[in-house]
Amino acid sequence: MKSSDIALLRSAVRDVTDFPSMGIVFKDITPLLSDAALFRLTVDAVTETIEGQGVTKIIGIDARGFIFAAAAADRLGLGFVPVRKKGKLPWRTESTEYDLEYGSNCVEIHADAVIPGERVWLVDDVLATGGTAAAAAELVKRLGGELAGMTFLMELEFLRGSRRLPENIPVASILTF
Amino acid sequence: MKSSDIALLRSAVRDVTDFPSMGIVFKDITPLLSDAALFRLTVDAVTETIEGQGVTKIIGIDARGFIFAAAAADRLGLGFVPVRKKGKLPWRTESTEYDLEYGSNCVEIHADAVIPGERVWLVDDVLATGGTAAAAAELVKRLGGELAGMTFLMELEFLRGSRRLPENIPVASILTF
Repeated sequence: MKSSDIALLRSAVRDVTDFPSMGIVFKDITPLLSDAALFRLTVDAVTETIEGQGVTKIIGIDARGFIFAAAAADRLGLGFVPVRKKGKLPWRTESTEYDLEYGSNCVEIHADAVIPGERVWLVDDVLATGGTAAAAAELVKRLGGELAGMTFLMELEFLRGSRRLPENIPVASILTF
Repeated sequence: MKSSDIALLRSAVRDVTDFPSMGIVFKDITPLLSDAALFRLTVDAVTETIEGQGVTKIIGIDARGFIFAAAAADRLGLGFVPVRKKGKLPWRTESTEYDLEYGSNCVEIHADAVIPGERVWLVDDVLATGGTAAAAAELVKRLGGELAGMTFLMELEFLRGSRRLPENIPVASILTF
Protein backbone atom coordinates (compact mmCIF):
# COMPACT_ATOMS: atom_id res chain seq x y z
CA MET A 1 0.00 0.00 0.00
CA LYS A 2 1.21 3.50 -0.86
CA SER A 3 2.49 5.58 2.03
CA SER A 4 0.12 8.38 1.01
CA ASP A 5 -2.82 5.99 1.47
CA ILE A 6 -1.54 4.95 4.89
CA ALA A 7 -1.21 8.63 5.82
CA LEU A 8 -4.79 9.17 4.66
CA LEU A 9 -6.09 6.35 6.85
CA ARG A 10 -4.00 7.54 9.78
CA SER A 11 -5.34 11.07 9.56
CA ALA A 12 -8.92 9.76 9.67
CA VAL A 13 -8.47 8.07 13.05
CA ARG A 14 -10.07 10.30 15.66
CA ASP A 15 -8.58 10.88 19.11
CA VAL A 16 -11.23 10.81 21.84
CA THR A 17 -9.92 11.95 25.20
CA ASP A 18 -10.92 10.35 28.51
CA PHE A 19 -12.48 7.23 26.96
CA PRO A 20 -13.15 4.64 28.27
CA SER A 21 -11.80 6.31 31.43
CA MET A 22 -10.08 9.54 32.49
CA GLY A 23 -6.61 10.11 31.08
CA ILE A 24 -6.94 7.64 28.21
CA VAL A 25 -6.89 8.84 24.61
CA PHE A 26 -8.99 6.40 22.58
CA LYS A 27 -8.29 5.87 18.88
CA ASP A 28 -11.72 6.01 17.25
CA ILE A 29 -11.82 4.22 13.89
CA THR A 30 -15.46 4.89 13.04
CA PRO A 31 -14.54 7.75 10.63
CA LEU A 32 -12.55 5.15 8.67
CA LEU A 33 -15.58 2.90 8.48
CA SER A 34 -18.32 5.34 7.57
CA ASP A 35 -16.50 6.82 4.57
CA ALA A 36 -16.90 4.39 1.65
CA ALA A 37 -13.52 5.22 0.07
CA LEU A 38 -11.63 4.98 3.36
CA PHE A 39 -13.38 1.77 4.34
CA ARG A 40 -12.44 0.19 1.01
CA LEU A 41 -8.84 1.37 1.45
CA THR A 42 -8.74 -0.09 4.96
CA VAL A 43 -9.95 -3.47 3.75
CA ASP A 44 -7.43 -3.23 0.86
CA ALA A 45 -4.65 -2.76 3.41
CA VAL A 46 -5.79 -5.68 5.57
CA THR A 47 -6.27 -8.10 2.68
CA GLU A 48 -2.86 -7.24 1.19
CA THR A 49 -1.23 -8.69 4.30
CA ILE A 50 -3.11 -12.01 3.95
CA GLU A 51 -3.07 -12.66 0.19
CA GLY A 52 -0.89 -15.54 -0.94
CA GLN A 53 -0.37 -16.87 2.59
CA GLY A 54 -2.23 -20.09 1.90
CA VAL A 55 -4.79 -19.75 4.67
CA THR A 56 -8.34 -21.08 4.55
CA LYS A 57 -9.99 -19.07 7.31
CA ILE A 58 -9.77 -15.70 9.02
CA ILE A 59 -10.26 -15.48 12.77
CA GLY A 60 -11.97 -12.25 13.85
CA ILE A 61 -12.08 -11.02 17.42
CA ASP A 62 -15.31 -9.72 19.02
CA ALA A 63 -16.53 -7.09 18.16
CA ARG A 64 -14.63 -4.53 16.03
CA GLY A 65 -12.34 -7.26 14.72
CA PHE A 66 -15.39 -8.81 13.06
CA ILE A 67 -15.66 -5.81 10.73
CA PHE A 68 -12.27 -6.21 9.05
CA ALA A 69 -12.03 -9.97 9.39
CA ALA A 70 -15.40 -10.54 7.72
CA ALA A 71 -14.78 -8.09 4.87
CA ALA A 72 -11.32 -9.59 4.27
CA ALA A 73 -12.65 -13.16 4.37
CA ASP A 74 -15.30 -12.25 1.81
CA ARG A 75 -12.79 -10.50 -0.47
CA LEU A 76 -10.36 -13.39 -0.35
CA GLY A 77 -12.97 -16.18 -0.56
CA LEU A 78 -12.12 -17.56 2.89
CA GLY A 79 -14.13 -18.78 5.85
CA PHE A 80 -14.72 -16.56 8.89
CA VAL A 81 -14.38 -17.71 12.50
CA PRO A 82 -15.42 -15.58 15.49
CA VAL A 83 -13.49 -15.52 18.76
CA ARG A 84 -15.87 -14.16 21.37
CA LYS A 85 -16.12 -13.18 25.01
CA LYS A 86 -17.20 -15.92 27.39
CA GLY A 87 -20.80 -17.08 27.10
CA LYS A 88 -21.51 -15.65 23.65
CA LEU A 89 -20.86 -18.74 21.50
CA PRO A 90 -23.74 -21.23 21.70
CA TRP A 91 -22.08 -24.56 20.91
CA ARG A 92 -19.15 -26.49 22.45
CA THR A 93 -16.20 -24.19 22.99
CA GLU A 94 -12.53 -24.12 23.80
CA SER A 95 -11.81 -21.23 26.16
CA THR A 96 -8.85 -19.51 27.74
CA GLU A 97 -8.34 -16.82 30.35
CA TYR A 98 -5.81 -14.03 30.26
CA ASP A 99 -4.73 -11.37 32.72
CA LEU A 100 -5.77 -7.74 32.54
CA GLU A 101 -4.31 -4.91 34.58
CA TYR A 102 -7.10 -5.55 37.09
CA GLY A 103 -8.73 -8.97 36.96
CA SER A 104 -8.92 -11.30 33.98
CA ASN A 105 -10.84 -11.89 30.78
CA CYS A 106 -11.97 -15.03 28.96
CA VAL A 107 -12.33 -15.65 25.23
CA GLU A 108 -13.80 -18.65 23.43
CA ILE A 109 -13.83 -20.35 20.06
CA HIS A 110 -16.16 -23.07 18.81
CA ALA A 111 -14.50 -26.48 19.12
CA ASP A 112 -15.15 -27.25 15.43
CA ALA A 113 -14.13 -23.82 14.10
CA VAL A 114 -10.64 -24.86 13.01
CA ILE A 115 -9.72 -28.28 11.63
CA PRO A 116 -6.43 -29.84 12.85
CA GLY A 117 -3.64 -28.79 10.49
CA GLU A 118 -5.62 -25.92 8.97
CA ARG A 119 -3.75 -22.66 8.33
CA VAL A 120 -5.62 -19.61 9.58
CA TRP A 121 -4.96 -15.87 9.96
CA LEU A 122 -6.04 -13.61 12.82
CA VAL A 123 -7.46 -10.10 12.32
CA ASP A 124 -8.31 -7.52 14.97
CA ASP A 125 -8.73 -3.76 15.03
CA VAL A 126 -6.07 -2.95 17.60
CA LEU A 127 -2.97 -4.50 19.14
CA ALA A 128 -2.75 -2.97 22.62
CA THR A 129 -1.37 -5.13 25.44
CA GLY A 130 -1.60 -8.22 23.23
CA GLY A 131 -3.55 -10.23 25.79
CA THR A 132 -6.56 -10.93 23.61
CA ALA A 133 -4.52 -11.80 20.52
CA ALA A 134 -2.24 -14.11 22.49
CA ALA A 135 -5.30 -15.83 23.96
CA ALA A 136 -6.84 -16.24 20.51
CA ALA A 137 -3.57 -17.71 19.25
CA GLU A 138 -3.64 -20.19 22.14
CA LEU A 139 -7.20 -21.22 21.16
CA VAL A 140 -6.16 -21.89 17.54
CA LYS A 141 -3.24 -23.98 18.78
CA ARG A 142 -5.46 -26.02 21.10
CA LEU A 143 -7.73 -26.90 18.18
CA GLY A 144 -4.67 -28.12 16.25
CA GLY A 145 -4.69 -25.23 13.81
CA GLU A 146 -1.66 -23.43 12.46
CA LEU A 147 -1.74 -19.68 12.99
CA ALA A 148 0.00 -18.32 9.90
CA GLY A 149 -0.02 -14.68 10.95
CA MET A 150 -1.91 -11.75 12.43
CA THR A 151 -3.03 -8.37 11.10
CA PHE A 152 -4.03 -5.39 13.20
CA LEU A 153 -5.42 -2.16 11.82
CA MET A 154 -3.64 -0.26 14.60
CA GLU A 155 -0.77 -1.05 16.93
CA LEU A 156 -0.29 1.01 20.09
CA GLU A 157 3.46 0.50 20.21
CA PHE A 158 4.04 2.03 23.63
CA LEU A 159 2.08 -0.87 25.18
CA ARG A 160 4.53 -3.37 23.67
CA GLY A 161 1.79 -5.91 22.92
CA SER A 162 3.87 -7.64 20.27
CA ARG A 163 6.07 -9.08 23.02
CA ARG A 164 3.15 -11.20 24.25
CA LEU A 165 2.42 -12.69 20.81
CA PRO A 166 3.76 -16.07 19.68
CA GLU A 167 7.27 -15.85 18.21
CA ASN A 168 8.01 -16.68 14.57
CA ILE A 169 4.60 -15.62 13.34
CA PRO A 170 4.37 -12.57 11.05
CA VAL A 171 2.47 -9.65 12.61
CA ALA A 172 1.29 -6.82 10.36
CA SER A 173 0.08 -3.50 11.75
CA ILE A 174 -1.37 -1.13 9.17
CA LEU A 175 -1.12 1.95 11.40
CA THR A 176 1.22 2.43 14.35
CA PHE A 177 0.83 4.96 17.15
CA MET B 1 -30.96 -16.21 -5.21
CA LYS B 2 -31.81 -19.78 -6.24
CA SER B 3 -34.05 -21.70 -3.86
CA SER B 4 -31.50 -24.53 -3.81
CA ASP B 5 -28.89 -22.07 -2.47
CA ILE B 6 -31.31 -20.85 0.19
CA ALA B 7 -31.98 -24.47 1.17
CA LEU B 8 -28.22 -25.04 1.39
CA LEU B 9 -27.77 -22.08 3.74
CA ARG B 10 -30.77 -23.12 5.78
CA SER B 11 -29.47 -26.64 6.26
CA ALA B 12 -26.15 -25.28 7.57
CA VAL B 13 -27.76 -23.39 10.46
CA ARG B 14 -27.21 -25.44 13.60
CA ASP B 15 -29.85 -25.82 16.32
CA VAL B 16 -28.35 -25.55 19.81
CA THR B 17 -30.80 -26.51 22.54
CA ASP B 18 -31.03 -24.68 25.88
CA PHE B 19 -28.98 -21.64 24.81
CA PRO B 20 -28.81 -18.98 26.12
CA SER B 21 -31.20 -20.46 28.69
CA MET B 22 -33.23 -23.64 29.27
CA GLY B 23 -35.96 -24.35 26.75
CA ILE B 24 -34.61 -22.07 24.04
CA VAL B 25 -33.37 -23.48 20.73
CA PHE B 26 -30.66 -21.14 19.43
CA LYS B 27 -30.00 -20.85 15.70
CA ASP B 28 -26.21 -21.05 15.41
CA ILE B 29 -24.91 -19.46 12.21
CA THR B 30 -21.19 -20.14 12.77
CA PRO B 31 -21.23 -23.15 10.36
CA LEU B 32 -22.37 -20.70 7.64
CA LEU B 33 -19.44 -18.42 8.42
CA SER B 34 -16.58 -20.88 8.71
CA ASP B 35 -17.22 -22.55 5.36
CA ALA B 36 -15.79 -20.31 2.63
CA ALA B 37 -18.39 -21.26 -0.01
CA LEU B 38 -21.33 -20.87 2.36
CA PHE B 39 -20.01 -17.57 3.70
CA ARG B 40 -19.69 -16.20 0.17
CA LEU B 41 -23.21 -17.40 -0.63
CA THR B 42 -24.54 -15.73 2.52
CA VAL B 43 -22.94 -12.41 1.61
CA ASP B 44 -24.27 -12.85 -1.96
CA ALA B 45 -27.78 -13.19 -0.55
CA VAL B 46 -27.46 -10.14 1.70
CA THR B 47 -25.96 -7.88 -0.98
CA GLU B 48 -28.62 -8.88 -3.53
CA THR B 49 -31.23 -7.25 -1.30
CA ILE B 50 -29.31 -3.94 -1.16
CA GLU B 51 -28.00 -3.53 -4.71
CA GLY B 52 -29.60 -0.74 -6.71
CA GLN B 53 -31.32 0.79 -3.68
CA GLY B 54 -29.30 3.99 -3.86
CA VAL B 55 -27.91 3.84 -0.34
CA THR B 56 -24.52 5.20 0.73
CA LYS B 57 -23.99 3.37 4.03
CA ILE B 58 -24.85 0.11 5.73
CA ILE B 59 -25.73 0.13 9.41
CA GLY B 60 -24.56 -3.03 11.22
CA ILE B 61 -25.75 -4.04 14.68
CA ASP B 62 -23.32 -5.19 17.38
CA ALA B 63 -21.91 -7.84 17.19
CA ARG B 64 -22.95 -10.55 14.68
CA GLY B 65 -24.59 -7.95 12.48
CA PHE B 66 -21.13 -6.46 11.92
CA ILE B 67 -20.08 -9.60 10.03
CA PHE B 68 -22.64 -9.34 7.24
CA ALA B 69 -22.94 -5.57 7.23
CA ALA B 70 -19.19 -5.06 6.84
CA ALA B 71 -18.79 -7.68 4.12
CA ALA B 72 -21.79 -6.27 2.23
CA ALA B 73 -20.52 -2.67 2.58
CA ASP B 74 -17.15 -3.72 1.19
CA ARG B 75 -18.71 -5.61 -1.72
CA LEU B 76 -20.98 -2.74 -2.65
CA GLY B 77 -18.45 0.03 -2.07
CA LEU B 78 -20.44 1.63 0.75
CA GLY B 79 -19.61 3.03 4.16
CA PHE B 80 -20.17 1.02 7.33
CA VAL B 81 -21.77 2.38 10.51
CA PRO B 82 -21.90 0.43 13.78
CA VAL B 83 -24.86 0.57 16.16
CA ARG B 84 -23.57 -0.61 19.53
CA LYS B 85 -24.66 -1.36 23.05
CA LYS B 86 -24.47 1.53 25.50
CA GLY B 87 -20.99 2.72 26.44
CA LYS B 88 -19.11 1.09 23.57
CA LEU B 89 -18.91 4.03 21.16
CA PRO B 90 -16.27 6.56 22.23
CA TRP B 91 -17.50 9.82 20.70
CA ARG B 92 -20.75 11.79 20.96
CA THR B 93 -23.73 9.50 20.55
CA GLU B 94 -27.45 9.45 19.99
CA SER B 95 -29.00 6.70 22.13
CA THR B 96 -32.36 5.05 22.63
CA GLU B 97 -33.80 2.52 25.05
CA TYR B 98 -36.15 -0.29 24.21
CA ASP B 99 -38.09 -2.80 26.28
CA LEU B 100 -37.10 -6.41 26.72
CA GLU B 101 -39.24 -9.13 28.26
CA TYR B 102 -37.56 -8.28 31.57
CA GLY B 103 -35.95 -4.86 31.81
CA SER B 104 -34.64 -2.76 28.96
CA ASN B 105 -31.69 -2.33 26.63
CA CYS B 106 -29.94 0.69 25.15
CA VAL B 107 -28.25 1.09 21.77
CA GLU B 108 -26.20 3.97 20.43
CA ILE B 109 -24.95 5.47 17.19
CA HIS B 110 -22.29 8.15 16.69
CA ALA B 111 -23.90 11.55 16.20
CA ASP B 112 -21.98 12.10 12.93
CA ALA B 113 -22.51 8.59 11.55
CA VAL B 114 -25.36 9.51 9.22
CA ILE B 115 -25.69 12.83 7.40
CA PRO B 116 -29.19 14.41 7.25
CA GLY B 117 -30.97 13.20 4.12
CA GLU B 118 -28.60 10.27 3.58
CA ARG B 119 -30.16 6.96 2.52
CA VAL B 120 -28.89 3.99 4.54
CA TRP B 121 -29.68 0.29 4.89
CA LEU B 122 -29.71 -1.78 8.07
CA VAL B 123 -28.26 -5.31 8.32
CA ASP B 124 -28.42 -7.72 11.25
CA ASP B 125 -28.10 -11.46 11.68
CA VAL B 126 -31.51 -12.14 13.18
CA LEU B 127 -34.94 -10.53 13.41
CA ALA B 128 -36.42 -11.84 16.67
CA THR B 129 -38.69 -9.54 18.69
CA GLY B 130 -37.66 -6.60 16.52
CA GLY B 131 -36.72 -4.39 19.48
CA THR B 132 -33.11 -3.79 18.47
CA ALA B 133 -33.91 -3.14 14.82
CA ALA B 134 -36.72 -0.74 15.70
CA ALA B 135 -34.36 1.11 18.06
CA ALA B 136 -31.67 1.32 15.37
CA ALA B 137 -34.27 2.67 12.93
CA GLU B 138 -35.20 5.33 15.49
CA LEU B 139 -31.52 6.34 15.79
CA VAL B 140 -31.20 6.78 12.01
CA LYS B 141 -34.35 8.90 12.00
CA ARG B 142 -33.07 11.10 14.82
CA LEU B 143 -29.90 11.81 12.85
CA GLY B 144 -32.07 12.88 9.91
CA GLY B 145 -31.19 9.85 7.80
CA GLU B 146 -33.57 7.94 5.57
CA LEU B 147 -33.72 4.24 6.33
CA ALA B 148 -34.27 2.69 2.89
CA GLY B 149 -34.66 -0.90 4.12
CA MET B 150 -33.45 -3.72 6.35
CA THR B 151 -31.98 -7.15 5.71
CA PHE B 152 -31.82 -10.00 8.20
CA LEU B 153 -30.07 -13.28 7.61
CA MET B 154 -32.76 -15.03 9.68
CA GLU B 155 -36.25 -14.14 10.77
CA LEU B 156 -37.85 -16.01 13.67
CA GLU B 157 -41.40 -15.54 12.41
CA PHE B 158 -43.19 -16.85 15.49
CA LEU B 159 -41.85 -13.84 17.45
CA ARG B 160 -43.58 -11.46 15.03
CA GLY B 161 -40.73 -8.94 15.16
CA SER B 162 -41.71 -7.40 11.83
CA ARG B 163 -44.73 -5.83 13.52
CA ARG B 164 -42.41 -3.60 15.58
CA LEU B 165 -40.50 -2.32 12.56
CA PRO B 166 -41.30 0.98 10.82
CA GLU B 167 -44.05 0.63 8.20
CA ASN B 168 -43.44 1.26 4.50
CA ILE B 169 -39.82 0.13 4.64
CA PRO B 170 -38.83 -3.04 2.78
CA VAL B 171 -37.64 -5.83 5.07
CA ALA B 172 -35.78 -8.79 3.57
CA SER B 173 -35.17 -12.00 5.49
CA ILE B 174 -32.92 -14.51 3.75
CA LEU B 175 -33.98 -17.47 5.92
CA THR B 176 -37.23 -17.79 7.86
CA PHE B 177 -37.88 -20.13 10.77
